Amino acid sequence: MSERDARRGVVYLVGAGPGAADLITVRGLRVLRSADVVLYDALLSPDLLREARSGAELVAVGKRGYCVGSTRQEAIQDALVRLARGGKSVCRLKGGDPCVFGRGGEEAEALAEAGVPFEVVPGVTAASGACAAALIPLTHRGDGQSVTLVTGHHEPASPDCTLDWAALARLPTVVFYMAARHVGAITRKLVEHGMAADTPAAVVEAGTLPGERVVEGSLDRIGRLSGEAGVQAPALLVVGNVVGRRARLLALRRHSPEWGLRHDPLPAEAAVHMTAASAGNGLRAAE
Amino acid sequence: MSERDARRGVVYLVGAGPGAADLITVRGLRVLRSADVVLYDALLSPDLLREARSGAELVAVGKRGYCVGSTRQEAIQDALVRLARGGKSVCRLKGGDPCVFGRGGEEAEALAEAGVPFEVVPGVTAASGACAAALIPLTHRGDGQSVTLVTGHHEPASPDCTLDWAALARLPTVVFYMAARHVGAITRKLVEHGMAADTPAAVVEAGTLPGERVVEGSLDRIGRLSGEAGVQAPALLVVGNVVGRRARLLALRRHSPEWGLRHDPLPAEAAVHMTAASAGNGLRAAE
Repeated sequence: MSERDARRGVVYLVGAGPGAADLITVRGLRVLRSADVVLYDALLSPDLLREARSGAELVAVGKRGYCVGSTRQEAIQDALVRLARGGKSVCRLKGGDPCVFGRGGEEAEALAEAGVPFEVVPGVTAASGACAAALIPLTHRGDGQSVTLVTGHHEPASPDCTLDWAALARLPTVVFYMAARHVGAITRKLVEHGMAADTPAAVVEAGTLPGERVVEGSLDRIGRLSGEAGVQAPALLVVGNVVGRRARLLALRRHSPEWGLRHDPLPAEAAVHMTAASAGNGLRAAE
Repeated sequence: MSERDARRGVVYLVGAGPGAADLITVRGLRVLRSADVVLYDALLSPDLLREARSGAELVAVGKRGYCVGSTRQEAIQDALVRLARGGKSVCRLKGGDPCVFGRGGEEAEALAEAGVPFEVVPGVTAASGACAAALIPLTHRGDGQSVTLVTGHHEPASPDCTLDWAALARLPTVVFYMAARHVGAITRKLVEHGMAADTPAAVVEAGTLPGERVVEGSLDRIGRLSGEAGVQAPALLVVGNVVGRRARLLALRRHSPEWGLRHDPLPAEAAVHMTAASAGNGLRAAE
């Protein structure tokens, strides 16, 4: 941490990325390694937590499934303010991107109100990670011009759910986060509102992690299939024709089982240095 | 690269992140540093390109504004296949996430068809990076339960644009990528389809980079304002009440000008090692 941070506490709201430890950003890893205190959510890789410096205080907050209630959220915010006021440099480590269903905005507002300096270090959001690992292109020129990220945390029939299903059903690609418990109810809502029942869909469980699983099926079958497979959080539901592109990509992987997305630990030793090659060396135009 | 890669070429479709060099992932940086050839898009940080190993071939592909035509795209895909078949390990470095309007899916399909092993290394998408830097929470519990990422590359009135404006106008938060030239036309379409004219909106130019600028205004004024400001690509248009939360967060930054999102170069020396602290040490429950 800089001298400024030593004099005055600071909070970094850091996205840990979608799961695999080495999908954190370089900036995020640097903040994590230098923080005095790390407040971390459930579901984060133990490999990442081991990167905290010796002597750093590690504090578990949050619950599985991201179902953190208001009281608990306020306690987290109070802890961030208190620690920063005590001169600590605090890494608030959150899964994915801190501001994509991560309540980073609420924590930023609490810090701003308390006059505590903070920075947001963005992360790879779960949809990008899970779809990369599952070989689903999140957007494709042939399949629409948007992708919508939705929280699937609320039971669709509950008053907590304020989603506009008619609008969602008209969109080409929709990804529901934290969807494990509501896949059937969500997909029924989409069909009720006019999305084609044979729209390709997939549930990605533990995307980018060694235990990753993908369940694929049409919109009207994916609820039953993911239930039969016993899908657990963390899981994303992806709906749209882009899911249909997976089969062809997957066929190659089956033929070449020796490759695929690797689950490497963070390197035990990796000199981070600027190489002799400059941006101007070796450049040539594309053919 | 592993022995496997040395025997047989491989292509890594790597997301470089939203702009600042240190917002690439740890995995992405490792791939970049070990590749034989780096094919990179315009708009990428020269600091990143300097990370290629000495002797690596650096090939510029793509154009400013991401307006790569089909012919050019096919040439890129052909080059990837040819290089991998020649036994090279190839890093295809793309801005943001390779599969969020990055045409990573098309490149993956071309590689799969040619039987070339490939891996997708996801990245921080531009919306996450720009909004973190501009202090706009991309989602907020008080402001809807979704965020929609849209390509703003096509003139809304052109046949190339297949967006469902009626659906988009009903959504709480919409981010248009590559929107610099079409801010006025896009926002007029949204108002025509029923989005409130006073919905907060912002254009973020060069998000996370030293030259970053943010132009803020209501939906019916942001087109004129961004035109007057002379906004250039790369720029994102963010529409939704979340933009209105920026003012309060920004007020604190103004009072504390010594802090804010840092634009650090990649560290000249950073030992990447596992610390003595394990995940089990120092853990305590949240208060």
